[in-house]
Amino acid sequence: MSETQSSLFEGFNSLEELGELGLIEKIAGMFGRHRTSSTAGIGDDCAVLPFGNSESMLVTTDLLIENTHFYLDRISPRDLGYKALAVNLSDISAMGGKPVYAFLSIGLPLDIPLDWLDAFLSETRKLSEQYHVKLMGGDTTKSESGLLINYTVLGIAKHDQILWRSNAKPGDKIALLGSTGESGAGLKLLEINDLPDDEKYRQLIKVHNRPRIFIREAQFLARSPAVHAMIDLSDGILSDAGHIAEESGATLQIDVEELPLSKNLRETCEKFEWQPLELALSAGEDYSLLFTIDKTEIEKVRNEFREKFSVPFSVIGDVTDGPSELRLNSDGNSFKINKRGYDPFKNIES
Amino acid sequence: MSETQSSLFEGFNSLEELGELGLIEKIAGMFGRHRTSSTAGIGDDCAVLPFGNSESMLVTTDLLIENTHFYLDRISPRDLGYKALAVNLSDISAMGGKPVYAFLSIGLPLDIPLDWLDAFLSETRKLSEQYHVKLMGGDTTKSESGLLINYTVLGIAKHDQILWRSNAKPGDKIALLGSTGESGAGLKLLEINDLPDDEKYRQLIKVHNRPRIFIREAQFLARSPAVHAMIDLSDGILSDAGHIAEESGATLQIDVEELPLSKNLRETCEKFEWQPLELALSAGEDYSLLFTIDKTEIEKVRNEFREKFSVPFSVIGDVTDGPSELRLNSDGNSFKINKRGYDPFKNIES
Repeated sequence: MSETQSSLFEGFNSLEELGELGLIEKIAGMFGRHRTSSTAGIGDDCAVLPFGNSESMLVTTDLLIENTHFYLDRISPRDLGYKALAVNLSDISAMGGKPVYAFLSIGLPLDIPLDWLDAFLSETRKLSEQYHVKLMGGDTTKSESGLLINYTVLGIAKHDQILWRSNAKPGDKIALLGSTGESGAGLKLLEINDLPDDEKYRQLIKVHNRPRIFIREAQFLARSPAVHAMIDLSDGILSDAGHIAEESGATLQIDVEELPLSKNLRETCEKFEWQPLELALSAGEDYSLLFTIDKTEIEKVRNEFREKFSVPFSVIGDVTDGPSELRLNSDGNSFKINKRGYDPFKNIES
Repeated sequence: MSETQSSLFEGFNSLEELGELGLIEKIAGMFGRHRTSSTAGIGDDCAVLPFGNSESMLVTTDLLIENTHFYLDRISPRDLGYKALAVNLSDISAMGGKPVYAFLSIGLPLDIPLDWLDAFLSETRKLSEQYHVKLMGGDTTKSESGLLINYTVLGIAKHDQILWRSNAKPGDKIALLGSTGESGAGLKLLEINDLPDDEKYRQLIKVHNRPRIFIREAQFLARSPAVHAMIDLSDGILSDAGHIAEESGATLQIDVEELPLSKNLRETCEKFEWQPLELALSAGEDYSLLFTIDKTEIEKVRNEFREKFSVPFSVIGDVTDGPSELRLNSDGNSFKINKRGYDPFKNIES
């Protein structure tokens, strides 16, 4: 198939060796990052494009592939219709934006049951109406390669409310909205044959198949100048907090004892001899929001937040002066983390 | 897999029976067309979103699936890298816009050779630089389902220069930039085993694998108030001109003797006993531009066009008062066309 020797990927022999982050670096190097104070291309949750005088347009896109990202016997059409759009809304809100328009490209096997498709689309519509997001177009095609779903979502944010990954400041507290580890446990439960029926398991699987997203909560936080950087936990805390450390040029210290581990998660991990902390740190798809916030303002913001919302708001660490790295503090010890969560090309945690 | 009985698709038993246009109708009915004088959702080449006082943002997206839309042994990585982006640039320009930003979602089999990927990306970059389009983001993931490519392209157009499908007016001439039928012949040639090497065949295959697009030509035409409606020929003249007839509420009459059939096309069709007119009318992916233009202005616009560009500019018919339909005129006879070109869900021309 090849026409030329590869110079772009010199020194690498395969995609697996290069890794996803490696590939994105190479693409960013080739095409440019297009980054200015008001514009961002490759490298954040969303692209940021200038839009009028005081606003920016945020753009995010996400490709979901049957038998790579989901299995039709493990997720209902309603949950998949919800999740495929929800993860994109989460990306927009994690940068402080309001999602506005959605575009759906969908590749459909010709034998897909129409009632399956109806349920999928109905749930997508329900979610889009809930947040006043308009489906404005897309592409429909048959697929010989299973079901394929690509959403592109456009959102709007005020320039000065964009929550860049690069904006964490020494002196900030690190906080987390929502839970962590539950989606990873849900995924592991889905992989077990003949799983006994148990409300705990159903709840964890629900977190995986139908993750809670925090659109209005994120918009509330973005309005506070005390909130500096934010990311949604799609690849796990180690990977996602690592991105903030790297982009902000600061040290992020996470106190592992402060991570919110639910009773469901702890009990299920005990039963199956899984490590809840490992799931909390390394498993992805929680879509909880991790953010940094000025420590002198955190109590005020948290109190205001709690008057409006009932989502768990945990303080889990500190941003400090120091090298661009992530450290875990536990039991009085501090460990530097090189591990970067899940790399989809490597199939192992690297 | 099903949870509920389908009410959305009542009366249909399969996707094949519903067809792609049927599915799009159902989705548009469910989600709304979001159409005002300055906004358009589902149903044109691009979505049109308000953007500032005098401009609109155009958005288009296109999903290409290995072994459904392309075969890696029939197209080089360079041609595929070109074509995957080019067809989206063509959609933006067919509405009178200037493409500005691109987003690439790509699903990669882990065993894809890195020199293949390098060639694919290099050619994408070359095309994007040629038209000053910036790649601003996307999604990279492994794929267990072959190579998957979804481009989303954003463009800008002045409100009053947007070339809506619905804007053809009785009295307009129908014109065509470029050729027709050659891409369809190229596709048929690619399906022949042990095709003899011949410059004619190579040229036709090139039209299919690396279609010429008319970005600057379309922008020139969009600046003329005499040009009313435009569409790029992605599904064949019958289908695409049919869309203009339907959306504009007018009759489009195509004089088949005026269709530009190249010498390569005619000679190749003679050799293989194919019908060149059938390819010109029903085969897709020519990406030539079909447009309607005020008949009193056409000579002036064509002369100005020819001073700047060397692309064939053919006059192929008339827009007339009458029902929303497409008619073919040939040899003094006129035929109403119900045929709608290629429907990807039906696998037959319907």
